Amino acid sequence: MKLFKTLTLLLFTSLILTSCGNKVENMVKNMAELKSAIDDAQPGDVIVMSNGTWTDVEIDFKANGLVDKPIVLKAETPGQVFIEGQSFLKIAGQFLEVHDLYFRNGYTPINAVIQFKSDKKNAAYDCKVVGCVIENFTQLDRTKKDHWVEFWGQRNQLLSCYIAGKSNNGPTVRAELKGNQHANCHHLIANNYFGPRPRRGGPRGETMQLGDSYTSMVPSYIEVRDNFLDRCNGEVEVISSKTNFNKFVNNVFYKCEGSLVLRHGNYATIDSNWFIGDDNSDNIGGVRVINTGHWITNNYFYNLKGNEFRSAIAIMNGIPKSPLNRYNQVTDVVIAYNSWVDCITPLQFSVGSNVNKSDVLPKSEIRSALPIRTTVANNVIYNSKTVSKDIVKYYDTPGDVDFQCNHVSETNDVKGFDGFLISEMNAISDETSIPFVEVADPNAKLFDGFDFAKIKNDIFSNNRDANHAGAICAVKDVKYNVLNMDKYGPSWFVASKGNANAKRVTVKTSEELYTSFEKANSGDTILIDADVLTLSKNIEVTKSVVVASANKDQQVRLQFTSTDQAPAFELGPGVDINLQHLIVEGTKTLNCFEPNAKDMSIAANVFVDNCTLSGFHSIYRSKKGSFTDTLKVVNSVMKNLVDGFIFDSETDDKGDYNAEFLIFENNQISDVENVFVDYHRGGYDESTIGGNFVFNNNVVKRSGKLGSNAILLKTNGIVNVQILNNEFTSIKSGFVARLWGEKNNVESGNTIKGKSKIVTDEFVTQKLMY
Amino acid sequence: MKLFKTLTLLLFTSLILTSCGNKVENMVKNMAELKSAIDDAQPGDVIVMSNGTWTDVEIDFKANGLVDKPIVLKAETPGQVFIEGQSFLKIAGQFLEVHDLYFRNGYTPINAVIQFKSDKKNAAYDCKVVGCVIENFTQLDRTKKDHWVEFWGQRNQLLSCYIAGKSNNGPTVRAELKGNQHANCHHLIANNYFGPRPRRGGPRGETMQLGDSYTSMVPSYIEVRDNFLDRCNGEVEVISSKTNFNKFVNNVFYKCEGSLVLRHGNYATIDSNWFIGDDNSDNIGGVRVINTGHWITNNYFYNLKGNEFRSAIAIMNGIPKSPLNRYNQVTDVVIAYNSWVDCITPLQFSVGSNVNKSDVLPKSEIRSALPIRTTVANNVIYNSKTVSKDIVKYYDTPGDVDFQCNHVSETNDVKGFDGFLISEMNAISDETSIPFVEVADPNAKLFDGFDFAKIKNDIFSNNRDANHAGAICAVKDVKYNVLNMDKYGPSWFVASKGNANAKRVTVKTSEELYTSFEKANSGDTILIDADVLTLSKNIEVTKSVVVASANKDQQVRLQFTSTDQAPAFELGPGVDINLQHLIVEGTKTLNCFEPNAKDMSIAANVFVDNCTLSGFHSIYRSKKGSFTDTLKVVNSVMKNLVDGFIFDSETDDKGDYNAEFLIFENNQISDVENVFVDYHRGGYDESTIGGNFVFNNNVVKRSGKLGSNAILLKTNGIVNVQILNNEFTSIKSGFVARLWGEKNNVESGNTIKGKSKIVTDEFVTQKLMY
Repeated sequence: MKLFKTLTLLLFTSLILTSCGNKVENMVKNMAELKSAIDDAQPGDVIVMSNGTWTDVEIDFKANGLVDKPIVLKAETPGQVFIEGQSFLKIAGQFLEVHDLYFRNGYTPINAVIQFKSDKKNAAYDCKVVGCVIENFTQLDRTKKDHWVEFWGQRNQLLSCYIAGKSNNGPTVRAELKGNQHANCHHLIANNYFGPRPRRGGPRGETMQLGDSYTSMVPSYIEVRDNFLDRCNGEVEVISSKTNFNKFVNNVFYKCEGSLVLRHGNYATIDSNWFIGDDNSDNIGGVRVINTGHWITNNYFYNLKGNEFRSAIAIMNGIPKSPLNRYNQVTDVVIAYNSWVDCITPLQFSVGSNVNKSDVLPKSEIRSALPIRTTVANNVIYNSKTVSKDIVKYYDTPGDVDFQCNHVSETNDVKGFDGFLISEMNAISDETSIPFVEVADPNAKLFDGFDFAKIKNDIFSNNRDANHAGAICAVKDVKYNVLNMDKYGPSWFVASKGNANAKRVTVKTSEELYTSFEKANSGDTILIDADVLTLSKNIEVTKSVVVASANKDQQVRLQFTSTDQAPAFELGPGVDINLQHLIVEGTKTLNCFEPNAKDMSIAANVFVDNCTLSGFHSIYRSKKGSFTDTLKVVNSVMKNLVDGFIFDSETDDKGDYNAEFLIFENNQISDVENVFVDYHRGGYDESTIGGNFVFNNNVVKRSGKLGSNAILLKTNGIVNVQILNNEFTSIKSGFVARLWGEKNNVESGNTIKGKSKIVTDEFVTQKLMY
Repeated sequence: MKLFKTLTLLLFTSLILTSCGNKVENMVKNMAELKSAIDDAQPGDVIVMSNGTWTDVEIDFKANGLVDKPIVLKAETPGQVFIEGQSFLKIAGQFLEVHDLYFRNGYTPINAVIQFKSDKKNAAYDCKVVGCVIENFTQLDRTKKDHWVEFWGQRNQLLSCYIAGKSNNGPTVRAELKGNQHANCHHLIANNYFGPRPRRGGPRGETMQLGDSYTSMVPSYIEVRDNFLDRCNGEVEVISSKTNFNKFVNNVFYKCEGSLVLRHGNYATIDSNWFIGDDNSDNIGGVRVINTGHWITNNYFYNLKGNEFRSAIAIMNGIPKSPLNRYNQVTDVVIAYNSWVDCITPLQFSVGSNVNKSDVLPKSEIRSALPIRTTVANNVIYNSKTVSKDIVKYYDTPGDVDFQCNHVSETNDVKGFDGFLISEMNAISDETSIPFVEVADPNAKLFDGFDFAKIKNDIFSNNRDANHAGAICAVKDVKYNVLNMDKYGPSWFVASKGNANAKRVTVKTSEELYTSFEKANSGDTILIDADVLTLSKNIEVTKSVVVASANKDQQVRLQFTSTDQAPAFELGPGVDINLQHLIVEGTKTLNCFEPNAKDMSIAANVFVDNCTLSGFHSIYRSKKGSFTDTLKVVNSVMKNLVDGFIFDSETDDKGDYNAEFLIFENNQISDVENVFVDYHRGGYDESTIGGNFVFNNNVVKRSGKLGSNAILLKTNGIVNVQILNNEFTSIKSGFVARLWGEKNNVESGNTIKGKSKIVTDEFVTQKLMY
């Protein structure tokens, strides 16, 4: 964010200079003064909020500046004005600016943190929010919906802000377009740093949602440019564009588990963006295309491994004469001059085709309309290593797609694909390790499509006179650092790195153990130096800690004897608990782990390695609204339980679920009376494609409830299920597992001794959630 | 069209001047020369087609001019180059112009008469068709579909043309937008005269259709301005706008039986148009509104009496989450500064609401979504006489519509309507007898809606500084003549008035009668001076004639004895036959009237007054594809028949039917064995709302087929049915008639002696036609 320091300095200089003229600088120290200053504000005024913490403030910045005399509301010192507690900022009127506020340690009591309107009749026009931070300003109850920046009105801008850590329901940024006073809005979202957004476990976790299906006919012309999106993993749609003529230019999508989705609306421009994946993830997507007239040009897709909804380019099938809120056919789309580097099967067509499901879905749900009048030309596909998979995948018969002059490295096979040709390529790695690729032959063949002359520049804004295929005209710009953060977010802000104060403590008694949890900092390790500790009270886990035996070769025994409702470990929001080398024993009226019922704003994680967990009712039991990102148990013994792991609290059939990853590897499991896992996602919606269950190399004995329909490992509605190389003996339930064949549910290498079985149901009748 | 003569003279002067420069004028006399001239054409060339008749010509005008050097194809003398037979004109390339051709006496063998493309890959850009005529160039088979002007490509123009008489299937002008090369097309349709288009009897009779539901998301920006639409009665949609951002400005809709319909697409501008009705018609409509964001401003609606689909302003209900081809909800519409003068209930809301039909229609057909976020402000409603009907009608509960400052003359009652106020008005009639109206008080209250400042001018393009309500800011412009035709159509063309050579002839023998039909001119009257004529051959009616007894007090007897398949009177396309004071007798193997089977391009009409028709199988029997605009029998005797009038040939359930008006008044009817009338329209589609049956003051005896389900007067699917003050005696069929209660079907004052009855079925299950 260094580059912007200079700009900010210049800005301040100008403010000071101007204040020597007719500008009034009005320092305010409390809400009464602030309210009064706003009420009296004249064009050109600057209202300065004094440094310090402003708690429970409801700012209604309603005033009217002029194009050359905006009214400015700013922090005395950038980053030293903290908005905390139950607070929000509303902006309404014309030519207003807000600078350098820091929202933290709280949440909004209304629908939005920053809202570009005051009420139904008063919206914002030509207003800017610049250099502000909204960090972890998330609702305590993660099922409560809000937005952090809500756009209304016209020509408003969100510039150079840092926004991160929203874990509750609702898109981070939302543009509303209902009404002529909000249509044709031309908002600008630029140079912001969108920090990590954790997985939400269901829909409504977008980082941006621009409009909705009811305004999908509205022209909006929203421009999203020069932003950095860092691991925005909230859901399968990182950005959901639902209106017309939006532009997405020069953004970096860094390891975001989702895609830029053209969900509704038409004629989007997606130009010169970077989509950066990871060797180890097939959840990181690129662009998903629905509807008409989009131009996808000059983009660079690196290291994307996803398929279907999460493929680098996913062109969907539509529903013929689709209802307003479903899937229009893809028509008149242009995909030109893009580069796919080290992506697997970057072009996937007719994604979402479900013609074979006409028995279980209503006709208005059948996506059978193939993409038509679509051009894919002058792109580059480069792989540094030989790839055995196809460059193009069709989930239905090919539609009317014109492939022309797409250049492919010799590490791929183009046989059987018209419009693709093997070309020699030059690949040069820059300092960020993203290789830049160009077609070697400067006279390589190109296609002259309708209006292609309008694609004047490449991803570096170099003009295309040297008219190479792919996003980069010439690799001379190899010095460009895609991951240079200087241009994003406020110049004054450095995102906290956490764990700076982490320490290791050793305890010998129960009391010391309780005390160590109370005093822990996030990241602490608590080592127990004892044989047995008897614990008559439960433990509230409010910071992320590792708990382990002091000697890892000798497991410490923790005997929980508490009889109240609370579990052995009650997990607060956002904590990780990590147990190692412990024997944890309970009673049949006690659960081992539960999330805190009142306060489930952020996902908790549970890691167990080399432990024995026994004698409990359940090891983990979810609550409605709680979410566990990852629960991972490895190399452990679990035995003598009523249930194992229960994640079944989202019963509204709205696509929500209680955990993103459940992983069990190398465990010994025995004597579980009912189910070992109940992992539930209800409600059919292809846009919630999450839920991951891994159960590999475990040995399970004498478990499950008697009954021909009973299931030991229940994964209803979970999309990704892997059950490999386990041994099941004396399972009483009729099924070890029932898999969902059309999704990514696989099993192999399992040995089942006895009558129980694993079956695969190809189609599962689901309740529609919209 | 005088004003334009001056312009045309200027144009020619410039052409001649330029031809003294580098312009090449190339006279061509036949297709070979024309083809060669086109092949060789260079920017700036003028190709001149020599005067005379060009028959069966397929012109493919494919060339490339330059912005300042168009290639022109023109007539040697405007209006003296006739394109006849099976001919068409295709235009493809850039900067081409076609001037002054006259299409007549033929039809196109392809899909279009003038087509702005040559083939799939070659469309027209920046091309113009100027001053051409297409007159009655209609397919022989009226079920065969074509378009007369088909727009493709971008920025093409249809200027100062005369186009009239299309009676076959298909819109007269059609804009196609499938593909980026046809989107954002910015076509201009200006200063044309669209002459009468006869009623088609079913859908696909629009004068203009701009796009379709599949391209309803495409921006088109088509401008339709300064056109005169004269009795364009093809169907209920005169213009069907189905794409986005179209503009309709300053057109005159003169007694068109239909509306300007915003069927699909959004953000249309309808500004400064004249919608002129007729005291005697409730079929003449105004603007029908569906979808989002339209601005309807400065329009003048005069003398419109229609309701529902045909009301001056019909705001429809939408279908929630409508399928692509159905009805989106009305949102964000502005209706401001319009004037309704002598209209009855000009504002009708929730038209098409059919919530009560959920038993007989699928859910995706139920129009229950009320109009929302719509503003109706600063309009004028003026009635010269006191009106008892409401100014606003709701077919459902009111939606979210903001009525503000609408000024109403004291001849109306505004009680119970918010946002309407009684104001004194000044009304001044101009020479065309259309009164111009203004609010008397120059300071009358106005509403300042969002973006209303953009409504800068009134209907006369006077600026709105004197900011009156209604379409006219000040009536100082009263000299404006709305019906001045000078600005429409080619300057060289006068539409033929017909009947100039009509004469009266008297015949005494059968042979003379046959000869008189053969030699007749349209409009002739044939008087028969004889007691009885025996006619062993049938009569082919190829011209419109009146046939009457020479002495109107003494009916002449015509005895048809022919036994071949042909009917007594075989009607050619477009004829009217009018029988007066005749006794027409036939046999039970003979029908009295039938349309010509091969050649049914234009509707025929039948009028019978003071005649006796007896002894035939049927009096009228339709054929598939034939159409009768009006059949009217009055003061006559009809007896001794198998059937009466059979109009049942449109059996495809596509909304088509065989007659627009069937009228029977003051007749004596007896001894009809089966049905007296079978009048059928199959297929449910609210956009075909035609069919009119009138049966008043008749006496019917001893008729109808025996059977409890038999019907004497069958009107299945006909929307307007009126059965008043008749006497039915000894009717054998179970029903005299079955009426459709939810449509405009009424009966009263009928006397039925015997068991037969008239029933009303509220809802009729219909087959959907889309």
